[in-house]
Amino acid sequence: MKITPNLANIAIILVQPQIPENIGAAARAMNNMGLTRLIVVKPKNCDLSRVIKMATGSSIDIIQEMEYYDDFLTAIGPFQHIVGTTARIGADRPATSFPRELAQELLNFSQHNQVAILFGSEDRGLSNEHLRYCNTITTIPTADFTSLNLAQAVMIVCYELCLKSREPIQTFEPRLADKFEQEHMYEHLREALSKIGFINPENPKHWMLNIRRFLSRYHLRGREVKIIRGICRQIDWYTEQLEKFKRKEQDDKKG
Amino acid sequence: MKITPNLANIAIILVQPQIPENIGAAARAMNNMGLTRLIVVKPKNCDLSRVIKMATGSSIDIIQEMEYYDDFLTAIGPFQHIVGTTARIGADRPATSFPRELAQELLNFSQHNQVAILFGSEDRGLSNEHLRYCNTITTIPTADFTSLNLAQAVMIVCYELCLKSREPIQTFEPRLADKFEQEHMYEHLREALSKIGFINPENPKHWMLNIRRFLSRYHLRGREVKIIRGICRQIDWYTEQLEKFKRKEQDDKKG
Repeated sequence: MKITPNLANIAIILVQPQIPENIGAAARAMNNMGLTRLIVVKPKNCDLSRVIKMATGSSIDIIQEMEYYDDFLTAIGPFQHIVGTTARIGADRPATSFPRELAQELLNFSQHNQVAILFGSEDRGLSNEHLRYCNTITTIPTADFTSLNLAQAVMIVCYELCLKSREPIQTFEPRLADKFEQEHMYEHLREALSKIGFINPENPKHWMLNIRRFLSRYHLRGREVKIIRGICRQIDWYTEQLEKFKRKEQDDKKG
Repeated sequence: MKITPNLANIAIILVQPQIPENIGAAARAMNNMGLTRLIVVKPKNCDLSRVIKMATGSSIDIIQEMEYYDDFLTAIGPFQHIVGTTARIGADRPATSFPRELAQELLNFSQHNQVAILFGSEDRGLSNEHLRYCNTITTIPTADFTSLNLAQAVMIVCYELCLKSREPIQTFEPRLADKFEQEHMYEHLREALSKIGFINPENPKHWMLNIRRFLSRYHLRGREVKIIRGICRQIDWYTEQLEKFKRKEQDDKKG
């Protein structure tokens, strides 16, 4: 079965962009490459007259439809698959792939899922905190000098998607759990795994990061998230039973 | 035999760029992708303070080494292989290829040859006159909307070269004739072919365009250009002989 690739379900999210012209230039790059959905989170400056200066021609439509969020998690919540872009590759960052390798996978997902690609601010990029929520990290290959302009980074990722979208897609990817569902699941897991002593309460973040890395590799479906939350509920129930017994035992001793 | 690809022999030539910031942004894109030689021909405005604003970090080195020319032919003269970039594909323009397909060929050439990639002005692109001198034309693939920013177009071509330059090169390309040698050859051909009546003197450009297309496909070496000019010289000699005979005959008749 051949399916036409779907660029419309892939959004670009600029996280805390600093310079309005870069927002406009990113919109123009997207427009050239057939992407249309642009989201900005906490822009430092979003002076539309400066944005529009760089968003020539029909790119203006993208700016008119642009979505604004103050809260990062609210912005990424509706998406099933999140990609982070980063120039730096640190020890505490997961393995990255190049946009060219990633493009096919994203177009498979975007058949039935909303995909978001995150770009950090011009001066600092995405934080480790932002990257925690990403299913995949991608790095644009460069020569030694690495200081890509924000809009140029957007351009290269969109260019790879545009090229790949001309090829028919062979595999079928069902609907995945969105980020809201995923985050509720992680929160539930954190609670449940703390209760049974799997997570050290003194450093829960470290253990949760391992759990996140492990699960985010599997592109969980809504059904699977429900299974995991079902297990968490059973842990809740089980630990409650144990607590009850303990309390009863203590009461009995006192009595 | 594996050879390391050579990005240093590939120059970017901006023909009549209008906006200084675009020159700086092009330099930054080049620097990110490992290219270093930037040439501008007849820039409308080359205000360095505005250029440098966009050429952050070590990109400034590219601006400091940047070469300026007033004359297009003088600028491209030293190059053996010229690539034109264009968004428009017209009936009187030769077939184009995409940067991804072209990258390998250019890196083969750049082992022993100077390669130039031309980008036209922001508002008009390269003229048909400019494209006449190109061995190859390349078009950046886009979605329906096509209005690439100059620096973003430079970025994509450099990105493809950078990626391809990480692969070892398998074929050997010897030194080719440079553009000065090629242009002298075309001029000589035009004269010689006019003399023998192959070229209609009322429309020499049309016929020469066909000759150019035909020969530019073959990536002529210096030796081959000499052979063609040798043939032209023989045509010169031959036509001169004929003229002498004709004059003698007329003189004889008069006498």
